[in-house]
Amino acid sequence: MSVGLDYPQKPVKISGIRLSAGSAEIYNKKRNDIALIEIDAGSITSAAFTKNHFCAAPVQISKYNLKKSKPRYCLINAGNANAGTGQSGINNSKATCETLAKITNCDETEILPFSTGVIGEDLPVDKINKILPSLVKNLSEDCWLDVAKSIMTTDTIPKATSKQVKILDTTVSITGITKGSGMIKPDMGTMLSFIATDVNITEDCLDKIKDNVLKRSFNRIIVDGDTSTNDSFLLISTCKTESLEIKEQNSKEFEILEDEITKVCSQLAQAIVRDGEGAKKFITIKVLEGKDTPECLSVAYKVAESPLVKTAFTASDPNWGRIIAAIGNSKIGNLDISKVNVYIDDVCLVENGERSKSYTEEKGKKVMEQDEIILRIDLKRGFCSEEIWTTDLSYEYIKINAEYRS
Amino acid sequence: MSVGLDYPQKPVKISGIRLSAGSAEIYNKKRNDIALIEIDAGSITSAAFTKNHFCAAPVQISKYNLKKSKPRYCLINAGNANAGTGQSGINNSKATCETLAKITNCDETEILPFSTGVIGEDLPVDKINKILPSLVKNLSEDCWLDVAKSIMTTDTIPKATSKQVKILDTTVSITGITKGSGMIKPDMGTMLSFIATDVNITEDCLDKIKDNVLKRSFNRIIVDGDTSTNDSFLLISTCKTESLEIKEQNSKEFEILEDEITKVCSQLAQAIVRDGEGAKKFITIKVLEGKDTPECLSVAYKVAESPLVKTAFTASDPNWGRIIAAIGNSKIGNLDISKVNVYIDDVCLVENGERSKSYTEEKGKKVMEQDEIILRIDLKRGFCSEEIWTTDLSYEYIKINAEYRS
Repeated sequence: MSVGLDYPQKPVKISGIRLSAGSAEIYNKKRNDIALIEIDAGSITSAAFTKNHFCAAPVQISKYNLKKSKPRYCLINAGNANAGTGQSGINNSKATCETLAKITNCDETEILPFSTGVIGEDLPVDKINKILPSLVKNLSEDCWLDVAKSIMTTDTIPKATSKQVKILDTTVSITGITKGSGMIKPDMGTMLSFIATDVNITEDCLDKIKDNVLKRSFNRIIVDGDTSTNDSFLLISTCKTESLEIKEQNSKEFEILEDEITKVCSQLAQAIVRDGEGAKKFITIKVLEGKDTPECLSVAYKVAESPLVKTAFTASDPNWGRIIAAIGNSKIGNLDISKVNVYIDDVCLVENGERSKSYTEEKGKKVMEQDEIILRIDLKRGFCSEEIWTTDLSYEYIKINAEYRS
Repeated sequence: MSVGLDYPQKPVKISGIRLSAGSAEIYNKKRNDIALIEIDAGSITSAAFTKNHFCAAPVQISKYNLKKSKPRYCLINAGNANAGTGQSGINNSKATCETLAKITNCDETEILPFSTGVIGEDLPVDKINKILPSLVKNLSEDCWLDVAKSIMTTDTIPKATSKQVKILDTTVSITGITKGSGMIKPDMGTMLSFIATDVNITEDCLDKIKDNVLKRSFNRIIVDGDTSTNDSFLLISTCKTESLEIKEQNSKEFEILEDEITKVCSQLAQAIVRDGEGAKKFITIKVLEGKDTPECLSVAYKVAESPLVKTAFTASDPNWGRIIAAIGNSKIGNLDISKVNVYIDDVCLVENGERSKSYTEEKGKKVMEQDEIILRIDLKRGFCSEEIWTTDLSYEYIKINAEYRS
């Protein structure tokens, strides 16, 4: 079940990117679970990874390889996270990269490995190596959606989106895919994301766009407050647009590109929340008139992480007391609660720190029964606003996670 | 349902404390929901309250009154938290104090009000005032358990405990009651706690004991990570022991008393966790060999707050990957994961940051199926150890909290 998510349309091809997907039989059921992305020589890649101290073997290798070489291949598997596996995990992941390097005649450091799935089990190297030749053989510009499907774990729907936009008379294409549904928290979730564009751009500009985009997309979502060991985000540019080159961070063209990539990434990040484990509701939390970003986010996350607020959303119960209790728990200095207003959509729940005179349970209930709700918290102490996206906490979340390995 | 909790034995009377309980019909069903505690003149009281910015009207009044006078009465109601009620909440709570002051012929500031229950509804002042005369009439040294029962909200069992201990040949009595089951988090839960002793002690010593005891009891428990607007903790001494006076913080007698009060409070704090909403398991998390207390607690709380770890406990699934992912998320500097060991009871799950060679799913499963589990995390980077107590996260938690107001 997901909230307001349609099956994605066929993504736009990106010149210079070829992909394929297959089954290495990592799962005990019939499904694709492995994917390959080939990146043309001359492309540039900007990456971000989990901040978890226990980062998985493939994350460690990818970080290392990115320093050594420009990536030519991404090798991605689902069903096994290859995390908590120590030196043998590193060896296993490297063994698959070595095999792929031989087949494709590239250097081992030009390959970035990614894994997602259960933590602490050995990567089935032989099964993966066995399918690599056919993955290479089947590479095609057309396979974005197949790859999006093959990297799903507890996702119920593949996540892909594209945009084509004119920048200074040149048509630029952007396509992104992502997976993730639980262990989702700021600083990314148990999330893999691959975004590609064909625009000709400098590395500095691409890195800057990556940083800015993450702040406003994948780092603004929360399902359960857990952060995974494997989160990875890749922004690739194949630099194919001859009539357009982006090399100035203050330029109009830079701004347009950043905006468009942000839109793609926000849509993908929101898709993760909409497909959040057990999610019945998609909730946007806006914190208005705070002093600064950390303060606004502190309030937003306290509310988004509160199991009591989340279960109230599950029950469509406008229990605003839990919302103010969560706001009150955020560690911000000298909050004057007698100024705080809280709204769900257009219904004012709390005015100047207490129940709004205009509020009735009937009005509150009506909004709470919606699938999509905007919760606005106005702190009235500054000029900063931030928003994040989250879900409710349902029986199904418990069911999915209690039974994940059985 | 609760984990390993028996119905409490009749608490020991404390000379100088009289109590009574009754029904003000705050709930729509027949049950006691209001209680009075009378404290003899000459007693001293040390208190701690919620750190939530949205602290409830009774908390604000109690804090004020404690500065003005020595408390003679605690007036406690369940079923209504009188929080998020603004100035009218203050007025309502004061109105009940005024009425009680008239009946008992004391000053209004000698009364401390406490409320627990639903947030944001008006306190039913008339109902409360109506029952005050009979509450005063029924005061008796014998009513500790009645009061413990009357202040329950989602608790399934009353929580009370007593100790009698010889200090320098004088028998000292300590009795404590508490309530709380959800919204439980360090810095206290939606928790009211009243502890009394008859020992003759100075205010400085009592305050110091309160601080030390809280650190090792009520501030070490977590059910769901939410912190309530109404948490209050009162430590009262009626100063009746003529043959013993405690006035030195470094004395043997101070140490013994602190130890004994800590035992009473730990038992009550653990009772809250054992009766945690939907709790099926009682989990002690010990973090060993950290650099300092904040670091140990940061790791312990990250693990205790992780919905994924909590649902793994619910499912009796030794999914240690979720535990290391949670450890890895704690914001401590330069954690060397290749040194970290993790145990459940005597079973080593993780050794030097990866799955222990000696580990089998069978061994892990066996421990996970127990009602009570000790999770030990050895960071091997210092000399500090801390422990906290928590529960699993079950379907029942969601059920209780989704249906709380219906």
